Amino acid sequence: MKIAMLGSGFIGRFYADSLQGYRSKDKIVSVYSRREESARKFAEDYHCAHWTTDLEASIAHPDVEIVCISLPNHKHEEAVLLCCKHKKAVMTTKPLGRNGAEAKRMLEAVENAGIFNGYLEDLVYTPKFLKAHESVKNGALGRILWAKSRETHPGPHSDWFWDLEQAGGGCILDLGCHCVEIARTYIGKDIKPIEVMCWADTQVKPIEAEDHAIGLVKYENGAIGQFEVSWTFRGGLDLRDEVMGTEGTIWTNSFLRTGFDMFTTGKGADYIAEKAETNSGWLFPVGDELNELGYNHMFMDMFNSLEAGRAPKETFYDGYVVNCILDAAYRSAKSKQWEPVLLDVWRGREGVTSQSHLLSYDADHYLVKEEMTHYGAKKIILKHKETGKITEKVLSE
Amino acid sequence: MKIAMLGSGFIGRFYADSLQGYRSKDKIVSVYSRREESARKFAEDYHCAHWTTDLEASIAHPDVEIVCISLPNHKHEEAVLLCCKHKKAVMTTKPLGRNGAEAKRMLEAVENAGIFNGYLEDLVYTPKFLKAHESVKNGALGRILWAKSRETHPGPHSDWFWDLEQAGGGCILDLGCHCVEIARTYIGKDIKPIEVMCWADTQVKPIEAEDHAIGLVKYENGAIGQFEVSWTFRGGLDLRDEVMGTEGTIWTNSFLRTGFDMFTTGKGADYIAEKAETNSGWLFPVGDELNELGYNHMFMDMFNSLEAGRAPKETFYDGYVVNCILDAAYRSAKSKQWEPVLLDVWRGREGVTSQSHLLSYDADHYLVKEEMTHYGAKKIILKHKETGKITEKVLSE
Amino acid sequence: MKIAMLGSGFIGRFYADSLQGYRSKDKIVSVYSRREESARKFAEDYHCAHWTTDLEASIAHPDVEIVCISLPNHKHEEAVLLCCKHKKAVMTTKPLGRNGAEAKRMLEAVENAGIFNGYLEDLVYTPKFLKAHESVKNGALGRILWAKSRETHPGPHSDWFWDLEQAGGGCILDLGCHCVEIARTYIGKDIKPIEVMCWADTQVKPIEAEDHAIGLVKYENGAIGQFEVSWTFRGGLDLRDEVMGTEGTIWTNSFLRTGFDMFTTGKGADYIAEKAETNSGWLFPVGDELNELGYNHMFMDMFNSLEAGRAPKETFYDGYVVNCILDAAYRSAKSKQWEPVLLDVWRGREGVTSQSHLLSYDADHYLVKEEMTHYGAKKIILKHKETGKITEKVLSE
Amino acid sequence: MKIAMLGSGFIGRFYADSLQGYRSKDKIVSVYSRREESARKFAEDYHCAHWTTDLEASIAHPDVEIVCISLPNHKHEEAVLLCCKHKKAVMTTKPLGRNGAEAKRMLEAVENAGIFNGYLEDLVYTPKFLKAHESVKNGALGRILWAKSRETHPGPHSDWFWDLEQAGGGCILDLGCHCVEIARTYIGKDIKPIEVMCWADTQVKPIEAEDHAIGLVKYENGAIGQFEVSWTFRGGLDLRDEVMGTEGTIWTNSFLRTGFDMFTTGKGADYIAEKAETNSGWLFPVGDELNELGYNHMFMDMFNSLEAGRAPKETFYDGYVVNCILDAAYRSAKSKQWEPVLLDVWRGREGVTSQSHLLSYDADHYLVKEEMTHYGAKKIILKHKETGKITEKVLSE
Repeated sequence: MKIAMLGSGFIGRFYADSLQGYRSKDKIVSVYSRREESARKFAEDYHCAHWTTDLEASIAHPDVEIVCISLPNHKHEEAVLLCCKHKKAVMTTKPLGRNGAEAKRMLEAVENAGIFNGYLEDLVYTPKFLKAHESVKNGALGRILWAKSRETHPGPHSDWFWDLEQAGGGCILDLGCHCVEIARTYIGKDIKPIEVMCWADTQVKPIEAEDHAIGLVKYENGAIGQFEVSWTFRGGLDLRDEVMGTEGTIWTNSFLRTGFDMFTTGKGADYIAEKAETNSGWLFPVGDELNELGYNHMFMDMFNSLEAGRAPKETFYDGYVVNCILDAAYRSAKSKQWEPVLLDVWRGREGVTSQSHLLSYDADHYLVKEEMTHYGAKKIILKHKETGKITEKVLSE
Repeated sequence: MKIAMLGSGFIGRFYADSLQGYRSKDKIVSVYSRREESARKFAEDYHCAHWTTDLEASIAHPDVEIVCISLPNHKHEEAVLLCCKHKKAVMTTKPLGRNGAEAKRMLEAVENAGIFNGYLEDLVYTPKFLKAHESVKNGALGRILWAKSRETHPGPHSDWFWDLEQAGGGCILDLGCHCVEIARTYIGKDIKPIEVMCWADTQVKPIEAEDHAIGLVKYENGAIGQFEVSWTFRGGLDLRDEVMGTEGTIWTNSFLRTGFDMFTTGKGADYIAEKAETNSGWLFPVGDELNELGYNHMFMDMFNSLEAGRAPKETFYDGYVVNCILDAAYRSAKSKQWEPVLLDVWRGREGVTSQSHLLSYDADHYLVKEEMTHYGAKKIILKHKETGKITEKVLSE
Repeated sequence: MKIAMLGSGFIGRFYADSLQGYRSKDKIVSVYSRREESARKFAEDYHCAHWTTDLEASIAHPDVEIVCISLPNHKHEEAVLLCCKHKKAVMTTKPLGRNGAEAKRMLEAVENAGIFNGYLEDLVYTPKFLKAHESVKNGALGRILWAKSRETHPGPHSDWFWDLEQAGGGCILDLGCHCVEIARTYIGKDIKPIEVMCWADTQVKPIEAEDHAIGLVKYENGAIGQFEVSWTFRGGLDLRDEVMGTEGTIWTNSFLRTGFDMFTTGKGADYIAEKAETNSGWLFPVGDELNELGYNHMFMDMFNSLEAGRAPKETFYDGYVVNCILDAAYRSAKSKQWEPVLLDVWRGREGVTSQSHLLSYDADHYLVKEEMTHYGAKKIILKHKETGKITEKVLSE
Repeated sequence: MKIAMLGSGFIGRFYADSLQGYRSKDKIVSVYSRREESARKFAEDYHCAHWTTDLEASIAHPDVEIVCISLPNHKHEEAVLLCCKHKKAVMTTKPLGRNGAEAKRMLEAVENAGIFNGYLEDLVYTPKFLKAHESVKNGALGRILWAKSRETHPGPHSDWFWDLEQAGGGCILDLGCHCVEIARTYIGKDIKPIEVMCWADTQVKPIEAEDHAIGLVKYENGAIGQFEVSWTFRGGLDLRDEVMGTEGTIWTNSFLRTGFDMFTTGKGADYIAEKAETNSGWLFPVGDELNELGYNHMFMDMFNSLEAGRAPKETFYDGYVVNCILDAAYRSAKSKQWEPVLLDVWRGREGVTSQSHLLSYDADHYLVKEEMTHYGAKKIILKHKETGKITEKVLSE
């Protein structure tokens, strides 16, 4: 696959490492950056034939088969529209837009243009997520009740993130977009998100946007998604998910506790551990960051899908749904009440209520709980179906 | 110390194991239970001289120096009033009342009677909490921004918990009382809790009360307490806290991951692992449950305080504040908006605002972030104090 | 219990914290130290009525009921003999002697004198060990095949440890004594240790004694004990055990990973984490060090046993066996071959061979292994009882 | 790259998943199996154009550029010699031979034939190992003192492993080959392994070969490699490494604790967790097994090296050294003493002694240890350079 990379910053380089490293047949053939020196440096580092400071020139370049947008948030729409104009397949870094309206315009544009569109939500492509999601789909956890995703770290790497106008939001938009899609995928992408409650504050940083937020997303079937995001966390990159069902639970830690512990006095060498806040003491490196963060499996899905003529797992439509959920979160943070998710376009199921899942113990009773006592006897707690009376009885073994 | 134990159920036995096991000079001299057989069995097991089914008889027993209330929630008030009548020191299991009004009546009663009153919130006495709290007080985490406590398990052991009238609530009251006091202690017990947002639902169990809830408690200084509670969790007793400050973070796990892993095929023996849902496969026992859950250090504080004539760390006043916070949580779960914490009695500080903590980089700029780049250079992101403009610069080494 | 504490150094203070902190009725009434200022300081800190620089004066003090020896290794024998002379109950820190001969003299002395004798091997009294050992005894792991104990840290606190004459050895004697008794207890204290193979070296420190060693202890029933000890480990105190049986395994970590993680920039305060090598970055504190290291349960067993007129779980006899095993380790490190454990006194079972535990699958075959294949089918690997031929067959489901 | 796969069993399929999955341009064009049905089934599953039960036919097939040997141990040599005859590049699964003599013949054959030769030791290619090894090379741990690798599980999947003649050995050969190369790589592949001490026993299985072994490998510079291997472990696949240096330590866990925890009642579905012994309770899946076990990075190195005309990181020479070390282990298990590693061919450094690394504190003293006391004071322990006397002094702050 021949790729145009738009943007040469932190995330562009991360993508490039994965794009050129994983499937050995993919190649970045053009790179665009606002700044000439950045474009040239990137082209050198990744051996790109063409570099430019003209956005359209990169997209329109005849060799380019797919465009990878790694630009600041406020530049996504312009780039997407140019891809539509030139009928180039496009994939865009997260979040899709700064808000639902912007996302919707991009969604409609690519669908009207009939071009391939991929939404680069890497964290639903991590090896752990893929395997965990498979277990969830197979029913190992029963009916899903709650899914939480937490992403916190000491703040992003580039200046534009901290500027409300360019970024469109703070850590809710930057990190919450990951968390929302993770929880939504566990709960079921065909289940409608109904309303959001969110707290957000600027607790530490000298910025307009929020640097810490916690939100709850209620789905039509009664399941709850939860996100915890912050740019004020100290200790590295905290990336943990939990999902809870009627038959089990899954906990994943993608970064700080992955079975790799290192202690170093720091005396031995200049070695600096990646993303860690310190380079001495106990450190927790990740073996293969690109793979652990999902980049490899994400681009594989994008390219395989494009080659097979089908939509990838994550499309602009997913990006749009995420933006609409985050919009509700921002509204809730201000109104201090649950806010509805306003989805003009909904392609999933409707009317999925939280079904009754009561377990009958006998003709007259529901089973509340069954357990072993301290003394090895079996105890059951029952509720009478009509009177509602709760009783317990200890079974002789 | 000579103790009357009111209640002979699960928690009464847990307390008794700690009370008589830890300080070898303490003794339960009387036990009360509603049911004669339970009272007699408990008296036998713990070698109590006196047992009775008459509540007042136990409290009034001449040998009794302190009364330990381990009764269902709806029986606390009656027992407390009898302690007041007989001027006996009293300590009560959590929660103090079923709501703030009940708690306030108990608080006023013991204070008017002038008797020693202890609130048995064991989870702020666990060895891990005590050490972690010490670090927090010493400033190792800087200014506290957020404190979360999670307690979830597959549901309580006795029938009355599942009956809304007797219990006064579901998992919010049963488990949230722990979580709220943990977060409140990390944030500072003199900082006023202002308002609460809470989601609650009955997702699984055939009961009136909530079996799953998540809540946020906002404090006057801008810090946030969070509780996650459930009676629907599968996998054992999940007891985890996290606290995050401007200079660090602490994570504690008190039950499921404490450095003790066991795999057993279950073939070898009838061994049943405590509180685990299974007795084969990977199990995570706790070394010394009474100590890890804080019972030992809690009773030591109670008795040492009583002997020294001072208030213990946790008094009825703390129980009252917790009940008021939980009342707001219940209101919020219904109103779907933030609800104020109604505290008729407030003994902490007032008017503690979230101070400005902006860090100046130079005369004209605030420091947003300082970090090491991939290439080992130091990068700083600044905000102009007047224009608000965000810029970044890379420092030569 | 009224105690004389001999020695006022690091371990003496640790013991005193536990002795006076746990059972509130025990009291150190006399303290001996070589140096007047140390004795006086200790007496002040722990409110001891009597202090002295005369060893016998402390032991003979009329108030003293039991003597706690916390002296350097080369001073144990002298102190023990004085306890015998004055018929005082005695408990001695580990190792009992510098070698088996010294240990045997002490063993015979206390037994001839008929005094209570306890061996202060705290690490078989940790809450985790007690619970794990209970599971092992209950058969949860089946027949025990291997038990390993690892204790490594950056080196001991007092000067005499580093002096071969006073200490009698390096990390094998200092740390290996713990590890050997842990493995021996898991395998069975009535099973005879037969021979030892040990590697030892002085890899880092400018000392005569070994600073790193690994040893294997073979027991009569074929089980293997393993110790890994070092004074050169960087990263804190590493205290991990593993035990493996035919039906399961147990892993315990008593210090560095116990469900308590803290990150701190170190900016916030002068806080210094206990025993950690640093006071910033990721730290792993222990909640209640005295309890986690077994001191509380050890002294409880000592005093309860003394009061009940029975031998404690760990006596001088155990210390003697440990010393004999370590003697063989030292011989092996020199001879570079397995060395027999020379036990003049053996009170356990004899002739316990490693029994045959072959599992018959049918009349003609032993079962080698049974497993699930990738494809969900059940596969069994068999060995013919006569021909010895190995075959596999896949069972239809 | 066009590949002939020799062998269609467990490991052949694992390799094939990685070979065809990772670099999208590589393809298995021919497969050989002893049994027709296996060859045909494999060819179908992996879309191979050619299958055969004639070993030479597969190797000689004109499309084949490189041969991948995934045969039982006793078939390696024959296959290698055929590759030499047909001048085909070859890579062989581990261990290279059943012993050093066999390995040496293969080594000489490929070198005389001048063909590319790769040794498929995947565990030095795991993402964690690669990153950890990089830190070690950068000096983050200082001088390496000890490196341990542990691989234990409930026994291999195919019948031939259990047959001493075909396999050439038990778990030492099967698993020890991994462990030895891991430790050797951490310590330095140019450092000569000198001698080995090994314990081995058949504790559980009805076989001739050992099912449990522990060994120490001494290197010329004084560093120690350690292996712990077993086919009797219960609990899954235990794959842990530790490396210890003068300035730090690294612990990796590649399988059972990688930040992915799942609890399931097993009620929800037929889901079977990979390689776990159970399918309910707490399970510890691995996200991306092929990547975590090093297959992807291993084959990438093989193909990139072949394309670039250079030797891969692991060649037949490494396989030969490993075999010679394991030979010494087998001899030691019988002789019960340290046995020399007999290396006819040694290509690393000679005469690397364990240098003196004593740290001077001042003109007269070596520094033994520096530490913080309980009371925050700094204490140093010194050794006089001439007298050898050990002293301690507390520094005023």
